[in-house]
Amino acid sequence: MSLPSTAILAARHARVRRMLETLSLDALIVTNATNLRYLTNHTGTAGIGVVTTGAVHLFVDFRYEEAVRALQQSTSACPGLRTWPVPASYDEALVDGLVDLGVTLVGFEASHLTVARHDWLARRLSARQSDIALRSTERVIEQARVVKDAFEIEVLRDAATRIGLVAEAAFAATAAGRAEREIAAAIESAMRSAGYERVAFDTIVASGPHAALPHHRAGDRRLQAGDLVVLDFGGVLGGYCCDLTRTVSVGPAGPVATRVYGAVREAQQAAIAAVRPGVDASAIDAAARSVLAGHGLGEAFGHGTGHGLGLDIHEEPRIGRHRQDAPAVALEPGMVFTIEPGAYLAGWGGVRIEDDVLVTESGCEVLTSVTHDLLAL
Amino acid sequence: MSLPSTAILAARHARVRRMLETLSLDALIVTNATNLRYLTNHTGTAGIGVVTTGAVHLFVDFRYEEAVRALQQSTSACPGLRTWPVPASYDEALVDGLVDLGVTLVGFEASHLTVARHDWLARRLSARQSDIALRSTERVIEQARVVKDAFEIEVLRDAATRIGLVAEAAFAATAAGRAEREIAAAIESAMRSAGYERVAFDTIVASGPHAALPHHRAGDRRLQAGDLVVLDFGGVLGGYCCDLTRTVSVGPAGPVATRVYGAVREAQQAAIAAVRPGVDASAIDAAARSVLAGHGLGEAFGHGTGHGLGLDIHEEPRIGRHRQDAPAVALEPGMVFTIEPGAYLAGWGGVRIEDDVLVTESGCEVLTSVTHDLLAL
Repeated sequence: MSLPSTAILAARHARVRRMLETLSLDALIVTNATNLRYLTNHTGTAGIGVVTTGAVHLFVDFRYEEAVRALQQSTSACPGLRTWPVPASYDEALVDGLVDLGVTLVGFEASHLTVARHDWLARRLSARQSDIALRSTERVIEQARVVKDAFEIEVLRDAATRIGLVAEAAFAATAAGRAEREIAAAIESAMRSAGYERVAFDTIVASGPHAALPHHRAGDRRLQAGDLVVLDFGGVLGGYCCDLTRTVSVGPAGPVATRVYGAVREAQQAAIAAVRPGVDASAIDAAARSVLAGHGLGEAFGHGTGHGLGLDIHEEPRIGRHRQDAPAVALEPGMVFTIEPGAYLAGWGGVRIEDDVLVTESGCEVLTSVTHDLLAL
Repeated sequence: MSLPSTAILAARHARVRRMLETLSLDALIVTNATNLRYLTNHTGTAGIGVVTTGAVHLFVDFRYEEAVRALQQSTSACPGLRTWPVPASYDEALVDGLVDLGVTLVGFEASHLTVARHDWLARRLSARQSDIALRSTERVIEQARVVKDAFEIEVLRDAATRIGLVAEAAFAATAAGRAEREIAAAIESAMRSAGYERVAFDTIVASGPHAALPHHRAGDRRLQAGDLVVLDFGGVLGGYCCDLTRTVSVGPAGPVATRVYGAVREAQQAAIAAVRPGVDASAIDAAARSVLAGHGLGEAFGHGTGHGLGLDIHEEPRIGRHRQDAPAVALEPGMVFTIEPGAYLAGWGGVRIEDDVLVTESGCEVLTSVTHDLLAL
């Protein structure tokens, strides 16, 4: 797995430090493992980071020491890294480190740190008679992550391109009499062959009435002629996620299926056509929604139109209805997200079509390239 | 996937309600998805629960409505379930629900709820001029989960038994010249064939010097004669996890490998022999640790001896050194955990051997049955 270079990490650090300056913070405690990886290239499942003006401090236990040492001797070394041992508990080591560093105003990731950990840290810091004050922050590193850098775009493009091989295997495995679970196994096997490290989420194979359940996974139901089958799958490549959905028909599609499919595809095309820098994310959602409403399927589309893709399978930007409590998000070049409208009719079935797009200077690049025809398999 | 019956859920609810009574709480907000599943059989990735004395309230959005309706018509229906719609945000629906319910002292899961969500809920409840007070709780449902019920033991036994098929495939795939990643792919393919829904964690294939990194995953390194290879994998069956590690040799094992392997196996046997009701979990860890220390490998064993298994791959009880800040845990019949001592020598390699055990009335039952001989493959 290739990792971003030291120069890429340095640019990420600079973005985060500018935000810390705006917030008047001496340091930021990074407990979210994905954010920590983004800043340091440390891919372990444990670890805490502390970003200060001069360094990135990494607290890791014995299990990761060798991996971090090897990383720091590579071209992907984290600039300004200082590692701290964790002899017993992570949070104890963190308290010791913060006191040693002599920082005062210290942000933490309020959307990640639990109440229990926060209260423990606050009590310990106070028992040490330090003058460290913990300050709630939100979306500091997430905001840096929302616009992808050159390394990330390259990996996301590769991840999205390869999914075409997996889609072919999925179509080949789909036939009357096959169980949903068997098709999911074929998809996941193709994912490995295509080079993905792992699946990005539990593969969805939702056939017939199951297709009306947007989060059905894959069960024992066997496909029947006339079923629509929603195939929703994605893989992780070099840490980055791709996500694709196609809906296919088992045997020739009936008139209702054809009509609903056409409406969802039209909604998706309208949403894709609306993507360009400066447009509000909610306008993309509205574009899809108004097409479906025009076909009498407004009520049948109960979820948002898309979500950001990156190190997480669901990240910013959210492509959904405008929310009063959330700031509007204007699209920028370098954002990557899914566009996946659907229509679900309880008891009958459903259709969802999903592609991954990259916002460019003039519009968008569709990263996934798999046929949008309603296949009869 | 079979789900526990209504009667099993009722017994779980009763255990949790007794704890709420002890804590003088009117209700408990359940945001941890695994805990929610444990109480309700709702397996969706979104949802919030509120346990009150008379009901279990489930807040789910449109995507899950049909699945919940189907569940409630089955023999695994959640007793006393009341579902609440989530028209927009989950936390808004929760605030509305809590105000409607007229509860006053409401616990939340402090080890799961983030500071950001807690602060938002507290502000909203106060803006509604409700007299609801949020109270931090920890380990309420986790404590109920630590002793497995009859349904869980049956599923965990099945999950652990089937891993033998996967181990055979892993051994068959291990040979000089094969890449770690290829062996991981063979393991994960065997996992699907054996009936697991998914892997319980990223499969570890750590060969030669990589075996010294306890959390190495699987990379491009090709196996060489004389390597030790740590194979650590697990699957999820019916929601429950199993976890197995074996260390094998590529070609005949050298004298150091044989000696280290023997020491780790002896440590594991000592730990297994120490398991019985009433014993402190840290005594199991001490049993393994003292054997390794006797072989001069005390420093080479840097992690804990084991962890609980259940709906989570890491849950209570922790089988590790006694910690001053954590209460002692006496083993009870029905607890299920791993025993996985190891020895790691930087630059050389490592050995880990792991089995899953169930505490019985008189000792323990080893649920995994795969040879402990040092195989030369």
